[in-house]
Amino acid sequence: MDFQHSEKCLDYLGRVEVFIESKIEPYEADYLKNLHEADDPWQVQPWIEDLKAAAKSAGLWNLFLPDSKLGAGLSNTDYAPLAECMGRSLVAPEVFNCNAPDTGNMEVLYHYGSKDQQQRWLTPLLRGEIRSAFCMTEPGVASSDATNMQATAVVQGSEVVLNGRKWWSTGIGHPNCRVLIFMGLSDPSAARHQRHSMVLVPVETDGVSIERMLPVFGEYDAPFGHGEVSFSQVRLPAEHIIAGPGRGFEIAQGRLGPGRIHHCMRLIGAAEKALELTCQRALRRTAFGKPVASLGGNRERIAKARMAIEQARLLTLKTAWLIDRQGVAAARSEIAQIKALIPRLAQQIIDQAMQVHGAAGLSADTPLAALFAQARALRIADGPDEVHLASVAKQELKRYQ
Amino acid sequence: MDFQHSEKCLDYLGRVEVFIESKIEPYEADYLKNLHEADDPWQVQPWIEDLKAAAKSAGLWNLFLPDSKLGAGLSNTDYAPLAECMGRSLVAPEVFNCNAPDTGNMEVLYHYGSKDQQQRWLTPLLRGEIRSAFCMTEPGVASSDATNMQATAVVQGSEVVLNGRKWWSTGIGHPNCRVLIFMGLSDPSAARHQRHSMVLVPVETDGVSIERMLPVFGEYDAPFGHGEVSFSQVRLPAEHIIAGPGRGFEIAQGRLGPGRIHHCMRLIGAAEKALELTCQRALRRTAFGKPVASLGGNRERIAKARMAIEQARLLTLKTAWLIDRQGVAAARSEIAQIKALIPRLAQQIIDQAMQVHGAAGLSADTPLAALFAQARALRIADGPDEVHLASVAKQELKRYQ
Amino acid sequence: MDFQHSEKCLDYLGRVEVFIESKIEPYEADYLKNLHEADDPWQVQPWIEDLKAAAKSAGLWNLFLPDSKLGAGLSNTDYAPLAECMGRSLVAPEVFNCNAPDTGNMEVLYHYGSKDQQQRWLTPLLRGEIRSAFCMTEPGVASSDATNMQATAVVQGSEVVLNGRKWWSTGIGHPNCRVLIFMGLSDPSAARHQRHSMVLVPVETDGVSIERMLPVFGEYDAPFGHGEVSFSQVRLPAEHIIAGPGRGFEIAQGRLGPGRIHHCMRLIGAAEKALELTCQRALRRTAFGKPVASLGGNRERIAKARMAIEQARLLTLKTAWLIDRQGVAAARSEIAQIKALIPRLAQQIIDQAMQVHGAAGLSADTPLAALFAQARALRIADGPDEVHLASVAKQELKRYQ
Amino acid sequence: MDFQHSEKCLDYLGRVEVFIESKIEPYEADYLKNLHEADDPWQVQPWIEDLKAAAKSAGLWNLFLPDSKLGAGLSNTDYAPLAECMGRSLVAPEVFNCNAPDTGNMEVLYHYGSKDQQQRWLTPLLRGEIRSAFCMTEPGVASSDATNMQATAVVQGSEVVLNGRKWWSTGIGHPNCRVLIFMGLSDPSAARHQRHSMVLVPVETDGVSIERMLPVFGEYDAPFGHGEVSFSQVRLPAEHIIAGPGRGFEIAQGRLGPGRIHHCMRLIGAAEKALELTCQRALRRTAFGKPVASLGGNRERIAKARMAIEQARLLTLKTAWLIDRQGVAAARSEIAQIKALIPRLAQQIIDQAMQVHGAAGLSADTPLAALFAQARALRIADGPDEVHLASVAKQELKRYQ
Repeated sequence: MDFQHSEKCLDYLGRVEVFIESKIEPYEADYLKNLHEADDPWQVQPWIEDLKAAAKSAGLWNLFLPDSKLGAGLSNTDYAPLAECMGRSLVAPEVFNCNAPDTGNMEVLYHYGSKDQQQRWLTPLLRGEIRSAFCMTEPGVASSDATNMQATAVVQGSEVVLNGRKWWSTGIGHPNCRVLIFMGLSDPSAARHQRHSMVLVPVETDGVSIERMLPVFGEYDAPFGHGEVSFSQVRLPAEHIIAGPGRGFEIAQGRLGPGRIHHCMRLIGAAEKALELTCQRALRRTAFGKPVASLGGNRERIAKARMAIEQARLLTLKTAWLIDRQGVAAARSEIAQIKALIPRLAQQIIDQAMQVHGAAGLSADTPLAALFAQARALRIADGPDEVHLASVAKQELKRYQ
Repeated sequence: MDFQHSEKCLDYLGRVEVFIESKIEPYEADYLKNLHEADDPWQVQPWIEDLKAAAKSAGLWNLFLPDSKLGAGLSNTDYAPLAECMGRSLVAPEVFNCNAPDTGNMEVLYHYGSKDQQQRWLTPLLRGEIRSAFCMTEPGVASSDATNMQATAVVQGSEVVLNGRKWWSTGIGHPNCRVLIFMGLSDPSAARHQRHSMVLVPVETDGVSIERMLPVFGEYDAPFGHGEVSFSQVRLPAEHIIAGPGRGFEIAQGRLGPGRIHHCMRLIGAAEKALELTCQRALRRTAFGKPVASLGGNRERIAKARMAIEQARLLTLKTAWLIDRQGVAAARSEIAQIKALIPRLAQQIIDQAMQVHGAAGLSADTPLAALFAQARALRIADGPDEVHLASVAKQELKRYQ
Repeated sequence: MDFQHSEKCLDYLGRVEVFIESKIEPYEADYLKNLHEADDPWQVQPWIEDLKAAAKSAGLWNLFLPDSKLGAGLSNTDYAPLAECMGRSLVAPEVFNCNAPDTGNMEVLYHYGSKDQQQRWLTPLLRGEIRSAFCMTEPGVASSDATNMQATAVVQGSEVVLNGRKWWSTGIGHPNCRVLIFMGLSDPSAARHQRHSMVLVPVETDGVSIERMLPVFGEYDAPFGHGEVSFSQVRLPAEHIIAGPGRGFEIAQGRLGPGRIHHCMRLIGAAEKALELTCQRALRRTAFGKPVASLGGNRERIAKARMAIEQARLLTLKTAWLIDRQGVAAARSEIAQIKALIPRLAQQIIDQAMQVHGAAGLSADTPLAALFAQARALRIADGPDEVHLASVAKQELKRYQ
Repeated sequence: MDFQHSEKCLDYLGRVEVFIESKIEPYEADYLKNLHEADDPWQVQPWIEDLKAAAKSAGLWNLFLPDSKLGAGLSNTDYAPLAECMGRSLVAPEVFNCNAPDTGNMEVLYHYGSKDQQQRWLTPLLRGEIRSAFCMTEPGVASSDATNMQATAVVQGSEVVLNGRKWWSTGIGHPNCRVLIFMGLSDPSAARHQRHSMVLVPVETDGVSIERMLPVFGEYDAPFGHGEVSFSQVRLPAEHIIAGPGRGFEIAQGRLGPGRIHHCMRLIGAAEKALELTCQRALRRTAFGKPVASLGGNRERIAKARMAIEQARLLTLKTAWLIDRQGVAAARSEIAQIKALIPRLAQQIIDQAMQVHGAAGLSADTPLAALFAQARALRIADGPDEVHLASVAKQELKRYQ
């Protein structure tokens, strides 16, 4: 056993930390304020593009991609600490071109895309020139059970025809969003996991309509946003199907493993940030003649947060290591474990940080409310906590059956 | 012991329920949608005023006020179930002229206001013609410890001069908000609880400036809102001081007892609403071949929510009964108990309801996110949970010292 | 609403408190020590019988029985606070002839027993001359689902023949235990709730064999104890069946309502005792230069215990009131609620008290370990917590179906 | 990072597992039954000594000791999984000569003992011929704050004189217990951490009196036991002081790091055992027409137990690795973290296992009650949870001061 990060990881980690501290944090302080005061929050604040260029030229770009020609060539284990570091910031993931859902979409295109699909979409995504969205969840059914899916992607001759309604399509509000990955039912009579297809849909295709943007706790996450999108007789050449009809599930499964590592590590970063703010505030503020840190159960809460974060990080790193060593299938229980565990944990730690910050913690004067909304939303995105708990239990009980 | 509500209470309760169901709920469904789509959310939606008039003529008006000449003349025990009922709705408290902070401000004026003060401010407040705000919390210090307060209300001859900065002044964004109650330090050399004064401040007074409106989780609670307000050399006749200089603490204490009953009962209503939505959704939605109600630990969560609500309601009702029988001082521990308990409880139950609603629960398609923000904010307003826990413990330990 | 106890209740409560304090507590201090050092712990310590006589002559006897000719004639609501008071002591319930399972057995005989049965068994039980046990739970099946029951009570001509194995028959080790109430399957073809019978079995009947006594956490609860009992071709006159064949379920249901009030109120008393010991110890002991009460989160834990006890007591009192007013069926959800809630709650509060007492809390130097074992066992007796949660959820969801 | 155990570790682990399964488990099933039925439980059951001999000849002996001449020469990281494996059994630690407090005492003698002390005590301890106890905790004061210690160890000429009263001296009841390590105050005027000494005390020394044995939840842990011991004018040659006067604290600190790894890993083994029993029982038992595993929230509890164990194990392994790499001082926060975390966690998981086992889980028919008592006791031994939480918080806050 060795709990030390690799040299390569440590090198990148140091550079990412310095970049965030020196280049991103000076802007971050006013990020939310500027966003709230903007005439049109659905525009990219101009310094973002400058920082992206700086990150790219510093070699801190596409760090998530294991292919060393297209990205940094880091394993999941080595990338994980970088994702944590980025998760402390609301904008760092985008600056390093490591933001969801673009990362997951790039991985799909990398692993399953045709040459043409890669050239048309993967290349500009890797360059950070365009953004993308992922259209899977539906408003009318419990989407945690994918067999409930009602949208259709039916092959008719040389075309595929899409119909249905999706929502919580994150990133669809971004001015540079050019392509959606749509998942729909192609063949209800096929084997259970071969019924669905994934289709690349240019945003401006006829029949695609963004019906509205959805708030999370009243916040729209501009300029990315979460959209409700209708697809009405959307016709595209069959070549837009990724990897061919019926492979939607297979692709979705492969997409999930590393994606959950990324999400969970970013949330661990968010929780660390919240704990850091908690400690600083608790030492600085005074009430009833003592620093807040010395009041009531605050120290115990700080200790428990530290312990929870340490453990959650180790479990996520072990999961990344398992994926690297033995693949996603071997890490199925662990992947479900971190998904069930960490968003909830991050929410709790951020909630406690708010409490120490008093009313300021609820407002946009700290990043806490924004981080809280991220964590809260991730308790539902990719399936609610409860679905993942059920999956962990299933695999536990299987050992005794 | 008798756990039956009084006849009078049951009569009002039935009428309030019918009014909400028949008159308010038809509008409520689109309330948040209309608010989000409004050009100017800081206006009162016109049907609100119509419903206020209807409530007034139905005799369902100022139900919170124990004086039977000016209000319904209900005891705290009898009003509590009405507050719960109103708490199920985002707009009912305003429709019945029972919304905070106006209720608390009316109580202050009723108990401590001079004839002139009552005529100028209490009368139009009771009529629902104007709205008010309460300016106590300050951005620069831990306001849970009132001795930290930095704003000043200094008597100079026949005038009182106000300086300082307040925030989280709820209701200050309302177009009808006309008066603020400001609390400030008058005499640092006086006995600890006789240093502060409360002053009535017309909104348009020179030197009063609303600096900005503050979001709670990104939501501004328009048209009421929470403001940051600066007071710079604000000069008013000394008659604007309520009950005379140095009585700020005394008034604040008296204001808190019934106000906490109201807040807690409304939150119990919110929690009941959330549980109701949970059950309905859990029976209606299907995943993995079963209604969501039959998945995982959902039934246990429903049972625990029911048990928690029942207990919290009983404790609040007992607290109301204690206040009615023996006064606020005798109920000090219980008042602190419900304050420490119920906002947190409501937050948890609403959070679980969100989980059962999936992503819809985070958006404005259900009232859950708005109710969550209310509950979350009340874990800090009037002092954070932890301050009230400390107060309960203090009184518990006192019995053994 | 009225949260005041009745005059009658307050009168008894005062007398019970004085009796416990002046007569029982002097012995209680050494009760566990004497028990552990006894040559034969399965004997009654002689002072117990003296105190029983004193209680009887003070009119503090059979307080649980609503019939004023045979007992105190108190309603459930009025008896509940007395049960709480007794629950603070390990021996008071027996001293006042209010100990389970005798109370439940007496109620069964009172409500369902024939004249003969009452004369033979109820009269000496009411006099405290004999003790009894209840044989329902079985080792081989999940007894929380009564349809699993395997023991049989088959009517053959004028006799009933019992076979099967029971365990956790509490009280069976007592030297005065003379009669068991046995529940068994009589007619598998009858309607689901008319298949079982309850039979009165003299302990010395042929075929009845106490196989062993069972410990709870290593403690045998002498002299009462929990036995595993086999019944092998036990033949008794059919008149030993209570209320006739097939009525076992009906009797069991009726037995449960008040019995759960008693158990829960005694546990609330135990929790109060634990909290009292916690506060006293936390003020008296010093570590790191402060009383333990001022360390870490101890005050918050004290406050939360206070809040939890207050709420649990109110819910139990309301349940008692509901039973008194509307009967057991109307209070079904509430009865399940307190059963699911209070044993667990008491366990937690006692566990915290142990923590404040350090290693002393684990030993027999305080009553905490014994109270802990009582609370822990009651999370399983009469059905585990989870069965009662399921019952609460079922009734909650029924409202929406 | 590498989450794979070393070859050496895996080799030992496989052999220990086989030994436990094939040699210990056949006896283990009746261990508690035999203990309860024994005329004198304070004797060693004879098969224990046979198994010790077998373990010794299999090279599975003194595995905890890092010195490869005297023990297995395993690092903390490599020994940790073996300790977990042993913790699944109530007797395995003793069989492999890896039981506390002997392990800690052997470490003390190994690191700090003189040649003579080692020859007289360490050698027979390493051979498993004698047992030992550790006398630190005192009944009269909060021993979590070591400065409270009242017992004295005063050097008078060539002798050291011991006075005081200790309790919870584990192992003192064992028939082979020959030596105690006593800690007492030698010089109140010395620097705070140089006031105390540790002294080796033969059990039969004049003035040493075992006053009584203490139960944990009614169980005496025979044949080891926990004793209360008085020391009255106990005179020993000054050579009995370990490492010289005033070094008690230094030795105690060094003893704690690895000892906590051992305790925590054994408890993780106990928790794994409880989870295994839970899953097996939950699949086998049926109620309400389903296996218990499919009732209520049982699957979620199983999943959460799995997640908690995984995380706790990783944190403990990382702590072991930190101690191996950087020493005890560098791992101070982590050592406190696992101590605060794991006993409580194990208690909860065992408690849930009891619940799934119904009443059987409370008795001695499963190892659960014994494992519960171990976990519960370890929440207090070596300082209560709360002291370790305070230590974690202190080090967390230090980063910001």
